[in-house]
This record gives sequence, C-alpha cells and structure tokens, in this order.
Amino acid sequence: MVRIGLDVMGGDYAPDSVLEGALLAHKAWSGVFQLVLIGQASVIQPFLDANPELAQACDTLFADQVIDMAASPVRALAEKPDSSISKGLDALNAGLIHGFASAGNTGAMLAGSVLKLGSIREDIRPCLLGCLPRPNGSDGIMLDVGAIADTKPETLRDLALLGHVYAQTVMGINQPKIGLLSIGEEPEKGNAVTVAGHKLLAEMSNIHFVGNVEGRDIFSDKADVVVTGGFTGNVVVKLSEKFFEIAQDLNCAELPFFKRLNYETYGGSPILGVNKPAVVGHGISSPAAIQNMIWLTYDIARTGLCERILSALKNE
Amino acid sequence: MVRIGLDVMGGDYAPDSVLEGALLAHKAWSGVFQLVLIGQASVIQPFLDANPELAQACDTLFADQVIDMAASPVRALAEKPDSSISKGLDALNAGLIHGFASAGNTGAMLAGSVLKLGSIREDIRPCLLGCLPRPNGSDGIMLDVGAIADTKPETLRDLALLGHVYAQTVMGINQPKIGLLSIGEEPEKGNAVTVAGHKLLAEMSNIHFVGNVEGRDIFSDKADVVVTGGFTGNVVVKLSEKFFEIAQDLNCAELPFFKRLNYETYGGSPILGVNKPAVVGHGISSPAAIQNMIWLTYDIARTGLCERILSALKNE
Repeated sequence: MVRIGLDVMGGDYAPDSVLEGALLAHKAWSGVFQLVLIGQASVIQPFLDANPELAQACDTLFADQVIDMAASPVRALAEKPDSSISKGLDALNAGLIHGFASAGNTGAMLAGSVLKLGSIREDIRPCLLGCLPRPNGSDGIMLDVGAIADTKPETLRDLALLGHVYAQTVMGINQPKIGLLSIGEEPEKGNAVTVAGHKLLAEMSNIHFVGNVEGRDIFSDKADVVVTGGFTGNVVVKLSEKFFEIAQDLNCAELPFFKRLNYETYGGSPILGVNKPAVVGHGISSPAAIQNMIWLTYDIARTGLCERILSALKNE
Repeated sequence: MVRIGLDVMGGDYAPDSVLEGALLAHKAWSGVFQLVLIGQASVIQPFLDANPELAQACDTLFADQVIDMAASPVRALAEKPDSSISKGLDALNAGLIHGFASAGNTGAMLAGSVLKLGSIREDIRPCLLGCLPRPNGSDGIMLDVGAIADTKPETLRDLALLGHVYAQTVMGINQPKIGLLSIGEEPEKGNAVTVAGHKLLAEMSNIHFVGNVEGRDIFSDKADVVVTGGFTGNVVVKLSEKFFEIAQDLNCAELPFFKRLNYETYGGSPILGVNKPAVVGHGISSPAAIQNMIWLTYDIARTGLCERILSALKNE
C-alpha cells in the first residue's frame, strides 16, 4: 500500500491542526493508503492513545527535533538531522514512504528536497506548483509560485515541461494547454526574460503552447498550465488568497468559485523538479487543509508523477 | 478655467462611447472645468449639433487622423502628426489644455508623452499608476502597472517617489505608507531587483517606507502606495479585473468592494514621470469609465501634480 508521510510538527497550528487533519484523512480514506505520522513521540503517542482506530491504521516515525517556521532553511537542516522534515525526507528518499507532506518551513522543504531527494536533472531547480480554480468548475495550475524568484528563459522552458507532465499525469488532461504569463498577447510583449522564454516555449515540440496569457486569463480556461517566474506567481497566489478573504468578509465565500479559491481546497503546493513526491502546505493550515494536502500527496505518489517527469526529460 | 482635452477617437468603442462619456461629464460637472473634444470634425460636429448644451459648454480641437488601437506606437506617432493623440499631446505641451485623457493606444500615449511632453527628469521613464479599492472604503495605488516591463532597482526608487507625491497631492494623504511588493516580508526576500530596490527605498528620507508587502497586502491598508515593476503590476491589475468579472457573473458585483474593483470606477491610469498630466483609459472604456477618466485628469491637473513631482525631485 502507498505510504504517505505527514510532518506532524509543521505549521503555525501544529501539532493540533495537523493531527486533526490526519484523523480526517483517516476517516475519509482508510484503507486507500497508509499514513505515517512523523514527529515527536511525546506529541503523537497521546493523540494515538486517544484515537485507537487511527493508531491501528497508521504508522509512526519518531523525530525528536523541530525546525521552526522562521528558521534559516539550510542551517536548520544541517543542525537538526532528527527534525521531522529531515527524517521525513530521508524516509522518502529511502523508499520507506512514497510521498511526504509538510505545512512547516517552506524553505527547509525546498532546500531539503534538493539535498535529500536530489534534482531530477542537475540544472533544474525545485519549483512550487499552485492550483487555480476556474469559474467553469475545472482546475488550472500555475508554476512557479514562489521557489524561483529570479527566473531565466530556460527556467520558463523547464517549468512548462514540468507543468505539462503534471497536468497530464495528475489531472488527466490529455493535451494540456500551456500559456506563458505576460503583459500582452503578442510574443514581443513582456519583460526580457519572458520574451526570450516565449521563443523557447514556441520551439518545444512536446507541449501544446498557446502563447502568452495575461493576468485576466489566469482564472480562465485559456491555458491549463500558466507558466511564470516565482516572483509574479507568488504575488498572484497570495493576491488570490486575499480575494477569498474579502469574499468571506462579504459573505459570498460560499459561492462555488470563491469556495474553491480557499487555500484549504487544494491543501498544498507540490514541489516539482526533485526525484520524489513532496508537498508543502500553507503555514496556517487548518485540519481540512491538512486532509486535502494528504490526498494531493497521495495523488502525486499514486500516479507516478516523478517517474513520468524523468521520462519526459529523457525524451526531450 | 481648467481645460481638459479628451481624445474622442480612442478606445474600442470610440467614438460613441467617448462622446457619451463626455456628455455625462458635462452633465455632472458643467462649469467646474472646460472639456475640449479632440478628434475628427465629421464625428464631433454631428454629436454637438444633437447636444446643444454640450456644444455651448465645450471647446473642440479637430484632428483628421486616427491612431489605431493596435498600431505600432512610435511609427504611428511619426506617421500621424494630425492624429487626435498627437494633437492632444501637442495642445497639452503648448498649454492650450491642462490635462489630456485618451482611451486609445496606450503605447502611443506613453511614447507620445515622452516625445511631446518630455520626461520630468531625463533618466525617468514614464510609468502607469493604478488605483486599488480597499475593503475599508479607502483607495490605495500601485505603480508601475505596465509601462516598464524590465525594472532596475533605481526604477523602484523613482516609482516610490512618484507614488508618494501622487498620494499626497491627488489623494490628500499626508504621510503615505510606501510598500515594496515582494514575496516575503523580510528585506532579503524577493528577486534580485526587489532586494536591491528595498535597500534604496530604505535609504530615502523623504518617504514613509513600511518595507515589503506581499500579494495578500495589495488590497489592504498596509501600504497606501504599492511599488512594483510593470510586469507584475500589470498582471495584478488584469487579474483584479478578472475577479470583478467573476464577481459579476456570480451576482455579487454590487457589493461595495467588488463594485469599486470595476475598472470604470477610476476611469484610467495616470502617466507619471512626464511634465504634464496625461491619463490613459482602458481600451474597453464605457461612457461611465470615460466620465471618470475625465474627472481623474481634471483632479491631477487641478492639484498641480506635475509641479509637485518636479519640486520633490529637486529636493531629493
């Protein structure tokens, strides 16, 4: 059975929120995959004692140390080999689990995924993928949403391929439409990196490149995959969160589109470009968000995304 | 009386939509300022014949040529000296009008504003300012929203000063809070240009720099002025338009915040960094948008924004 590791110590409301989320996932999908709770024994054991059904179904991997949310990623990984993030990634690399999810320190997850899982190709940096609801009920994706702040044209090409394989493999879109985020539809519109990136994407024979898309196209079906650098992508994702909050304050957050704009819906951002499935959750993750992050991680592990990406890179 | 020039030929729905907008402005603010309708006599004259009150109150400046919405800006300006945009900017430069508004070719307005009005300082490029509604009912601004796709750290410093003076002069905010858009609150977070820009903004003694702001802070009162490059700024503005459209489709566009998210509310984007007040409207401008663009242009002319910017630059 697929085994999904969960960092019990990661997140602003950890461990309570994470443990509650694990319980929700257990109730929803018991028998579909096996949860492995990773964190301090003193935290996990009492919760399992109080929830014997979960205790019976899940596995545990105890980790004494905790990487703080605000800690310097590389230093924290070096100084805390027994942290839940370090041990979770180690277990993933060793094949003891098939996917690892954490709502903890995003920088530590990104740096750790390279250090411990390895880049899928040496010149590819890990990136974060964001899910976008669309008013017609379907989903789109955008990448990168915050890992690669300074983007080169070649980065945009790599992101396009990663997004293409993700959309095919995890979302089941046969021929995903790939759009490049810019500030005009014409190939010559945009900043220098995007204009150069457009040329590279247009040369790719293995993707369905639909050209530039604009801010107004992000939540539309003009493209299934929106490719952009991590700076603008991160701004878009956080701005969208703000719109959800505003909709909530205005009492229209129960409308289908806004409801799906809630970060809880997708639960987390997959790290793409490394050799194994790792997913980062929002720091503020609620139990519902944790539950959905667990499913997302399972979905990526189940579909063999990393193997599919590796194969696509070899055929390039 | 302050004279505001209006490009009758500019916009996807020109001239009808522009003329209807002029009529709305006349009805609302007759006697407050004088409108100068700029465009083809064959278009303007019949409308004035049908609207004698407007005919009596406004002035006209006939221009035989029209710059198409999709025309190459610099070439169009060179080839069409008698276009409404060329003649409008000429009239503004000559002091025959005190502000000029056009919903026409944005590139031609930007290039023309430099060619005909001149940069306010030789190393400053013209930028576009966007208005942002905030859920608390007040307004914020962001710049640049699309003129400067490739930004240098020094550009961000100039944008901060331009936004500071705009917020003081046009919006009446005594000590506007200036935020730098980035992907984390810490000064070292962001892309290289933003991190370097942060240092420059932090050294400015004449502004109230509140540090980095994130995507989720754009529609909040954390900063009155959000400084960012034209690539990301343009994506944010167009994404916000999309959210308004979605809210409209979901029948919640009448809620106060979403209503103000409508591009019509502010009517246009002021061009800052040139010597005279010019405002660019949205291509799709409706009569209501044209009306509000006229007011915005009047407001900028009335308050002496360009002189205030010049003086702030001298005191730097």
